[in-house]
Parts: sequence; structure tokens; C-alpha cells
Amino acid sequence: MKTEILYGVHPVCEALAANRRHVFEICIDREKKSGRIAQLLSLAESRGIAPKTIGPDDFRTLAGSARHQGVVARVSPYPLSSVVDIMQSIQDGKRTPFLLMLDNILDPRNLGAIIRTALCVGIDGVILPKDRSATPTPSVSRASAGALEHINLARVTNLVNTIKHLKSAGLWIVGLQKDAGESIYAGDRTGPMAVVVGGEQKGIRPLIGKQCDFLVSIPQQGPVDSLNASVAAGVAMYELFRQRQNR
Amino acid sequence: MKTEILYGVHPVCEALAANRRHVFEICIDREKKSGRIAQLLSLAESRGIAPKTIGPDDFRTLAGSARHQGVVARVSPYPLSSVVDIMQSIQDGKRTPFLLMLDNILDPRNLGAIIRTALCVGIDGVILPKDRSATPTPSVSRASAGALEHINLARVTNLVNTIKHLKSAGLWIVGLQKDAGESIYAGDRTGPMAVVVGGEQKGIRPLIGKQCDFLVSIPQQGPVDSLNASVAAGVAMYELFRQRQNR
Repeated sequence: MKTEILYGVHPVCEALAANRRHVFEICIDREKKSGRIAQLLSLAESRGIAPKTIGPDDFRTLAGSARHQGVVARVSPYPLSSVVDIMQSIQDGKRTPFLLMLDNILDPRNLGAIIRTALCVGIDGVILPKDRSATPTPSVSRASAGALEHINLARVTNLVNTIKHLKSAGLWIVGLQKDAGESIYAGDRTGPMAVVVGGEQKGIRPLIGKQCDFLVSIPQQGPVDSLNASVAAGVAMYELFRQRQNR
Repeated sequence: MKTEILYGVHPVCEALAANRRHVFEICIDREKKSGRIAQLLSLAESRGIAPKTIGPDDFRTLAGSARHQGVVARVSPYPLSSVVDIMQSIQDGKRTPFLLMLDNILDPRNLGAIIRTALCVGIDGVILPKDRSATPTPSVSRASAGALEHINLARVTNLVNTIKHLKSAGLWIVGLQKDAGESIYAGDRTGPMAVVVGGEQKGIRPLIGKQCDFLVSIPQQGPVDSLNASVAAGVAMYELFRQRQNR
């Protein structure tokens, strides 16, 4: 079976807490002690896993990154959802759909930060295209502080077809575009909704923008061009979350 | 004279546009052509600077980073402001003060993203402590997409004393703290204000928190602990910006 190496305290803790991946093995640096590692050990024990302790020199090779914080785990591949799964779980939970679609987000750190925000505002599912996107790797799990382990995430071949499908299921498609005349702060956006956020350089592709019911922008002042992609996505998701909470 | 090497299209363009640093020399990769580089050449010409073209191999050494995009500039050190300068410019502009204080932001990428947002919402000045903070380096300018070149930024020895000074000048001090009972969305926050944002790991230090007039949190759902520092700062600044725009 194919396995992946998760690294960092949060990704390994949250993989155990979410219980969606099989955890084959956990290794902990015998020289590291912290409250978070104690919590991890107790979570591992409750899953019947006895972590191995190894020396600090073995870690870097194992993790393939210096950002391991003395914790790695060998786990089954990332548990992808499908759009059908996501829509079913919304229906089962009788929730008003709140989805996030990402077009062209290439930087794993931005993807991680966006997924972390998505989990905090109760996004029902994150949809990524198979092309032109960062993928849900261990480094994204690390950048998401383990939020990736909990979020429902689907990868689709054709974002345009997925948008058409979501529209036919009654969702409004709101695209974030920096030159859009309408502000995200104008109007009621509390209905069933998928928010589309574009990438670091070019934003939403025109063929995706054409499919959106609304294109909205985040108001900005000053001489510099636009916000960091994960900040822009965060500001947009939080404004919709705020409106939903007030409803 | 001490000089710094700025790298990346945005930092060099914005340093030219802001006109706060002396630009001694600009080097451009002779193999790179883009609209942004054409814009940079025209800005440089308007400042009477003739960029040198060099080969791609010379760049990495010069920039000390792979993220140079074929553009580097040798410039004078970062033009720091003082708190007095910032307060004076607010008074001259007859604006309602809107400041940002950062405590414990250590990651240059987070500092850059935060400064980029600060510029977009019209923050009058960013105040950093000299200890326990990332500093306004070329890599922060890069992460801020050049926003650092325009923002007013002061470094202070003692954040507590600065807070006391700002309070005596009539500002409200609002601290962002993840466990605070009061939501940032509750209440009117359109008065003269300094927002205090804490760092990636530990948030605001207790001695800083004690000086705040209000401690507010960003509402969050779900199993994972908190937002990325630059996203949290962005969401908070944008909520205050939204309220100020609506006033």
C-alpha cells in the first residue's frame, strides 16, 4: 500500500484526532518534550499505537523537511472526498451549502493557510482542480496546522463542469476578482453558496469567471496591487461567515 | 554608506515609486522580458537610473535568494518612521488614527503579508518591537509585494510604553486574542484605534494584553486551534476597515 510521511506535531495530532487515515507508525525525537507531544502520545495510545523514539539525526531524512518538530508518522494517502460526498453530507446535516473552490492556488503554504481558515468558518468542502493547483501533500497539512486532516476536500478534472453541477443543485457561485465593481460587503450572501478564489498571480481564469453568478471584490486603498492570496481568501470567507452568523 | 539588496520585481518597482530610498544601482536579467519589467525600466528612467543587464548566473549570488525574478537593486537602508512621525502625519492629514502593533510576529512571510494588508486598509503606521519580531528586511519587502516600501513603520524599544503614549494621545487599544470572550464583530470600533496582533505561536504577551482597553477574538468553529497569523491579522484589519467605511 502507498504511504505518506506526515511531519510536524499538528498534522500528526490532527490525523489521529480526525481518524480518517490509517496510521502505520509514529516516530518521536527522544530529545523533545512538550505539552503538545504529551497530548500526541495520549492520542496515539488511545488508537493503540506505540510511537518509536529515534534520535534527532534520523529525522531530517525521514521527514524530507527541517520543519518536522521532532514528530513524523507514516500514514495512508490523503482521504479525498468527492463533490457527491460533500453534497450528501450537507444534505444529511441539513446545512445551507458553503463551499470553497480554488482556481490556480499553486503555493502549498497559501493552500494550507486557506484550508485552515476554511475549517474555522465551517466550509463544507474545498474543491480543487487536478491541474493548476497545489495538491493535499504533507507540506500542505503542515501549513494548515493539521486542518487538512479534518476538511472535506475534492479534486476535480473540470472546474467548469463542477460549477455547472453545483448551479443545478441550487448553489450561487460567487467569484472573488480584484477588479470586480461589486464589493463583497454589498448585499446579502447568506444563501447556498460556493466561493471561487483565484491564484497568487492571475486570479480566477476567465473561463471560470464567466460561470460565476456574481463577481465581487475586496475593497482596497493605496498604491500596491492586491492582497496575499490566503489573506484575500480569509477576508472573503470571514465576511460570508459573519453574514451567516448574523442571519 | 550601508546598503541593502532588494530583490524581486515588486520590491524594486515599489521602492522606485515610493521614492523613500536612494537607489544606487539596478540589475536586470537580460533574458527576462515582461510587462512588469518594462514598467520598472520606465520608472527607473524617470528617476535617471540606467539598469545594468547581467546574466542569470550572477543573480543568485547577488540576491542571496532564488526568489529574485531577475531583478535586484542596491538601495539605502529601510526608511524607518518614528511613532512621533506617524502621529504627526495623522494629524496633518486630519485622519482618525488607525495603527497596527505587532507583538511576536517572527516569520518574515507573515510580516510581509500583514504589511500588504495594512497598506490596503489604510493603516497609518505599523509599530514593531525591536525584540521578538521579524525586521523590515528585503525578504519582508518581497513577501509584502513591495508594500513595505510605502507603509510607515516604526520600531520601538518598549511596546508597553508606546501603548501608554498612544492611550494618552486618545487612542483605544484593541488586542486580538483567541480566547477573548468579546467578538471583533460586536460593537462599534470606528474611533481612533491601535490594533495589537500577536505572534504565530503564543499570541500577545500577557504584559501587553494587560495594557489593552479591549481584548477581542475572531469567532471560530471546528477542531483546529487558530488561524494563520497573517490571515487573523487580515480578517481583523478588514473588519475595522469595513466599519470605518460604513461610518
